[in-house]
Amino acid sequence: MKKILVIQGHPRSESLCGSIAREYATAAQQGGAQVDLLDLPRLQFDPILREGYKAEQALEPDLAKAQQLIRAADHLVFVFPSWWASMPALLKGFLDRVFLPGFAFKYRKNSPLPEKLLKGKTARIFITMDAPAWYYRWFNRAPGLRLLKFATLEFCGVKPVKYHIFGPVRGAPEKRLQKFLNEARRTGAQEAK
Amino acid sequence: MKKILVIQGHPRSESLCGSIAREYATAAQQGGAQVDLLDLPRLQFDPILREGYKAEQALEPDLAKAQQLIRAADHLVFVFPSWWASMPALLKGFLDRVFLPGFAFKYRKNSPLPEKLLKGKTARIFITMDAPAWYYRWFNRAPGLRLLKFATLEFCGVKPVKYHIFGPVRGAPEKRLQKFLNEARRTGAQEAK
Repeated sequence: MKKILVIQGHPRSESLCGSIAREYATAAQQGGAQVDLLDLPRLQFDPILREGYKAEQALEPDLAKAQQLIRAADHLVFVFPSWWASMPALLKGFLDRVFLPGFAFKYRKNSPLPEKLLKGKTARIFITMDAPAWYYRWFNRAPGLRLLKFATLEFCGVKPVKYHIFGPVRGAPEKRLQKFLNEARRTGAQEAK
Repeated sequence: MKKILVIQGHPRSESLCGSIAREYATAAQQGGAQVDLLDLPRLQFDPILREGYKAEQALEPDLAKAQQLIRAADHLVFVFPSWWASMPALLKGFLDRVFLPGFAFKYRKNSPLPEKLLKGKTARIFITMDAPAWYYRWFNRAPGLRLLKFATLEFCGVKPVKYHIFGPVRGAPEKRLQKFLNEARRTGAQEAK
């Protein structure tokens, strides 16, 4: 049975991101997958990696559990809003704390390339943009997407990483929001197989 | 007298970023500028924008002070390490909390372009990279730089935004680190004028 882990990165559970995550998760579950949903605002953890990479910072139980779920998953799904062209500090802090050397990758002595420790997994990213039209020119260079897709997930061996950009959602009519939710649901059903 | 605000975004004050910030600040002060140094790990604030843009979150005194300092400054200097090709959650959280609509920009009714509220200021960014050589291919697309330079500062009217990429610093010999510090000091002295 396919194991899917959905990581919801908006600080409000009751947000469009929260709905997208729940719609995807429900559809994937109904489609036959084993689905876990990590709703980050409900987790107890310090988003600040206090010592950087100089010293270890004990993992809170919720983060230890998150590492287990990531390790066990076949497919990772991230949902977050684009704030300042990137993810909220909540999700960035989750990455800083959880995607540690030794868990997500390992430096190798005689190679500039790291050992990728999350190989064999795939991923999908949903980004919502609370933004008017001028924002679109950032689309292809979207830093929040780049840093997660290329510099984090693919760097650790997660591949392919597909994505959806949902926007603008600011002042969007109900019909457009519904379209986004439908797309999340359809994708969840497809990826359950 | 030129007013410079230095914002240090590494969670450890005693880090290379901390040293760069202090060297720059000292040199600028000696050069005649009025310099304030915001060392983010010493500030008391919640890095999570809990309600997103749906409701107001009261500013802690340290953040209210930060807004005053930013408003008063002629020149903003950011120093941070690149973690997952971007800034630590500490600095992202600072941006999420401080660069609010109404302070940094304002949506306009009949225009897709916002009113830029930080016009007239300039900025400089120092990014350290704890990274081996393969990281360089991210240089030109560096998401952490892009999201701060283009999508945040220039978006709010801060221009020009110059930058330095210092790397790799992981395992770097003392001589190279010293070179970075010298560059920070020289730049601080120049920008005091």
